[in-house]
Amino acid sequence: MAILGVGLIGGSIGLAAKGRARAQVSGYDPDESVGEKALALGAIDARAADVAEAVRGAEVAFVAAPVGALADTVRAALDSAGPECVVSDVGSTKRVVAAAAADERFIGGHPLAGSETSGVEHAREDLFEGATWYLTPAQGSTAGVLYERLHVLLRKLGARPTAIDPETHDRLLACVSHLPHVLANLLVAQAERTVGAGEQRGLPAVGPSLRDITRVAGASSAVWTDIYRSNRDALLATIDEFAERLGDARATLAGGDGAAITAWNERARDSREALLGAGLAGGAEHELRVAVPNRPGVVAEIALALGGAGVNIADMALAPSADNSQGTVSLWIGGDEHAHLAQELIAGLGFPVIRA
Amino acid sequence: MAILGVGLIGGSIGLAAKGRARAQVSGYDPDESVGEKALALGAIDARAADVAEAVRGAEVAFVAAPVGALADTVRAALDSAGPECVVSDVGSTKRVVAAAAADERFIGGHPLAGSETSGVEHAREDLFEGATWYLTPAQGSTAGVLYERLHVLLRKLGARPTAIDPETHDRLLACVSHLPHVLANLLVAQAERTVGAGEQRGLPAVGPSLRDITRVAGASSAVWTDIYRSNRDALLATIDEFAERLGDARATLAGGDGAAITAWNERARDSREALLGAGLAGGAEHELRVAVPNRPGVVAEIALALGGAGVNIADMALAPSADNSQGTVSLWIGGDEHAHLAQELIAGLGFPVIRA
Repeated sequence: MAILGVGLIGGSIGLAAKGRARAQVSGYDPDESVGEKALALGAIDARAADVAEAVRGAEVAFVAAPVGALADTVRAALDSAGPECVVSDVGSTKRVVAAAAADERFIGGHPLAGSETSGVEHAREDLFEGATWYLTPAQGSTAGVLYERLHVLLRKLGARPTAIDPETHDRLLACVSHLPHVLANLLVAQAERTVGAGEQRGLPAVGPSLRDITRVAGASSAVWTDIYRSNRDALLATIDEFAERLGDARATLAGGDGAAITAWNERARDSREALLGAGLAGGAEHELRVAVPNRPGVVAEIALALGGAGVNIADMALAPSADNSQGTVSLWIGGDEHAHLAQELIAGLGFPVIRA
Repeated sequence: MAILGVGLIGGSIGLAAKGRARAQVSGYDPDESVGEKALALGAIDARAADVAEAVRGAEVAFVAAPVGALADTVRAALDSAGPECVVSDVGSTKRVVAAAAADERFIGGHPLAGSETSGVEHAREDLFEGATWYLTPAQGSTAGVLYERLHVLLRKLGARPTAIDPETHDRLLACVSHLPHVLANLLVAQAERTVGAGEQRGLPAVGPSLRDITRVAGASSAVWTDIYRSNRDALLATIDEFAERLGDARATLAGGDGAAITAWNERARDSREALLGAGLAGGAEHELRVAVPNRPGVVAEIALALGGAGVNIADMALAPSADNSQGTVSLWIGGDEHAHLAQELIAGLGFPVIRA
């Protein structure tokens, strides 16, 4: 396995892959001291001198470079990697790198973990435990075997791989991550001015709601400036929608009508419950067996259909038939309801599917 | 001690006062079943039939009614309370009740705790442990003894009492609490629409930043509709400032200039550090002894000066001279720097002050 960029995320992938998947990890970092530290911390087994050396012989290569350097590093990895090597990345936006790396061996990725700190010294083997890890296989990608390999590895790291298309990913993240960071930045600035402007020259303790909402304020510029720039169009559209909602809420609050304010607040409560409830499912894990023709794109097609419906694929295995003409995909799905939904969706795609 | 309204906050005051200050607590709640529950849970020693019965003989009365019923209940308590009884409240906005209760015995209050749940069944003895508890003594209030009694009691409950004037309180809370609630409401609504509109029909897991920022979304309407209405003018001004900041940030992000985006993000980081750092102070606790004339308003004056500078009064004691013509206020202040600042501020008010 190769890891290109061994900071917090790359280092944690290394620790988890070594500890949980018994992988042999070769690491490269443009900053030699970071590579040395990763080696000393046991996050990698060997320090490579360059990208080509790191990916030589690798079955999986993760590019964990800053968003600004992502596309170039992914292309360098693809140039050096073998034909059976899956190359992935961990960038927070996905369209740019997807466009730059139109190669069957590339499957974009984005773990929702580790945004608060940075640096390999904070790397942890359990950083991805329970974390959603978005994967953006190209629609129609032929690389089913590579997708399965990546999925199985991420499960071993403790993550929940979920397929999504790059456009939806970037629009979604603009709303659920990038906008919250912008709002947090604005709020701390305003709170500091408010605290500083009055007689109240020091704030003895910020309230719990401010502490929560501003935890991500002023997150690492090395990471976030690139994110803001690479997802600019989606973020601006998201900000515009938010500004409109803020104007509507202001009008409701200015009106002073208790019933209208309550109705607005209750709708927010419903939205919050819908959001937090999404993806939750009770019940045991079910195995679905899907008979698939051995043709390009099937695994990506199924993963995207299930990911789009919020169905988590707990585990996945491919079993090709002896003559490679067709095969079986086994999928393990948590929860009765989600297993049922998955079965319907897969049948809807035209593949025979049974519960094992 | 009397508690009027024995829900989450009132019940927790009762548990803490009984457990930590050995108080005898009489409780009243307009909802009989709530009063019964509080009695059964041991949050009060006796259930009173009305406000007058509850406050009879009390040295301290807390009004823990919803914001909408606050002013009326405070007035009822003052009507029935004795001349030496201090009456306080726990409402989230302070100007309305201050205006309604212009009485030497009234000192408004607001503990920053317990906003997430409601109901006496969630009451806890340690709810106020370490929490800032704002007190709004009228400037020039003569009730130094009452202020000291309240301060000492709140310290026993585990809280950090901090004096502030009602206007500053409401403006500050609009920014650090009410606005975050509004933003959280808007964000969950937008996130739900974004998740629901695309192919992504379910959100497998919301990112950590969304979870943090929306924790307070759709908070209890029974509490928040009143808060939004009672602090309307301050909240609208705060929203307007925020909307302007959002417009500025949008322009910076749209410009796409990495240096400008980084500068904006770094300013937010500085603001966050300034906010979180305010009020923190290293070092031991120091006792200051202040010689004060026994004239109206001295204690409120000192408490407001220190509160306004972010200096926390860990403990306080009044010792009148034998002939009551003058006295000593002992103040315990945490941290070398804050003790020094407090000494300067008090000297600046014209009172002789020494370190004990």
